[in-house]
Amino acid sequence: MTKPSMFLSKTEILDAAEQSLRRFGPDKTSVTDVAKLLGVSHGTLYRHFPSKAILREAVTERWLEESILVPLTEIVNHIAENPLEQLKNYIMKLIELKHLYAEQDPEMFKMYADVTAESADLIDAHVRRIIEQMITLIAMGIETNLIHTTLQTEVLARSIFNATARFHHPAHAYQWLSTDIEQEFSGLWYLLEKGLTAPAK
Amino acid sequence: MTKPSMFLSKTEILDAAEQSLRRFGPDKTSVTDVAKLLGVSHGTLYRHFPSKAILREAVTERWLEESILVPLTEIVNHIAENPLEQLKNYIMKLIELKHLYAEQDPEMFKMYADVTAESADLIDAHVRRIIEQMITLIAMGIETNLIHTTLQTEVLARSIFNATARFHHPAHAYQWLSTDIEQEFSGLWYLLEKGLTAPAK
Repeated sequence: MTKPSMFLSKTEILDAAEQSLRRFGPDKTSVTDVAKLLGVSHGTLYRHFPSKAILREAVTERWLEESILVPLTEIVNHIAENPLEQLKNYIMKLIELKHLYAEQDPEMFKMYADVTAESADLIDAHVRRIIEQMITLIAMGIETNLIHTTLQTEVLARSIFNATARFHHPAHAYQWLSTDIEQEFSGLWYLLEKGLTAPAK
Repeated sequence: MTKPSMFLSKTEILDAAEQSLRRFGPDKTSVTDVAKLLGVSHGTLYRHFPSKAILREAVTERWLEESILVPLTEIVNHIAENPLEQLKNYIMKLIELKHLYAEQDPEMFKMYADVTAESADLIDAHVRRIIEQMITLIAMGIETNLIHTTLQTEVLARSIFNATARFHHPAHAYQWLSTDIEQEFSGLWYLLEKGLTAPAK
């Protein structure tokens, strides 16, 4: 009952892998489990995904794209009166999504957290796309004379991303249940906004 | 050859525990190992430290005090011309110490990282002391008209501590080998300093 691999799409494989990861957890899911779920041979699947690590990365990559980048892109594309407000909304959406999935989709979130600590290239590429979107918003803020800086927009974007890591980096998820988190973010944003809007020296 | 417990000081126990943790690693050190090293009975040591977790916390607490807080306190006590510069030096020293121990004392650092993720109260107390020292520096900055803010000094101190977490929180240690880290810190500090010094609205 083995399907020929030519009919096996990447989406089908990732769907099966995600299902398997959710059912057995990231540590216990093997390429063989996923092959069984698809009714294909172990060898067929290995031609697409030569290791468990590569399979996990592929599932995480798709999850980051669909769960995090798609909603963030909507915010960037939304035409706003105030680019600074839009930048704040962008960061707040990033934080909100991370907290949401940490709570409501713990298996996928744990896998993402593991991949973050282990797969620098995949995560670097993801972060770079977020930085690029932030650069777009920062450039609009500079154009409309709301943001004043002598830093390159990319350095500024990365500084804001780093400054808010405590609220969106998965290694901090254990701290997100703290009740002070909103007050802590608003204190930080006050400081960052003041830093962004003050005249550049 | 069992020593009576009345002659067993806390320092002796912590020294033996630290030695044992370094030799066997945090996961493999048991209260029994430490008792053996001290030549006392398991029961004697249990009266002082009723679990492995409590022993690990006590060792971490002492390590945080001696390795992190003592050098930071020196910076706070140093009379500086410019409290803002002193605040920057304080944060940079915090970062430098964390990076130093992550590299040069990986066993203790790993234990500290584990305790950070598990023992909220101990770490909260440690962070509170850092926040208090930062408050002292911020208050001097406000007094000398270098820092302008409508936030409470405590909220401001915590915001700066949070904003720099990527550089000093042990969960980020895996990122500290990145070569861009100095540029990333200097971009962030530019933004924070601008936020601190701009007139409050």
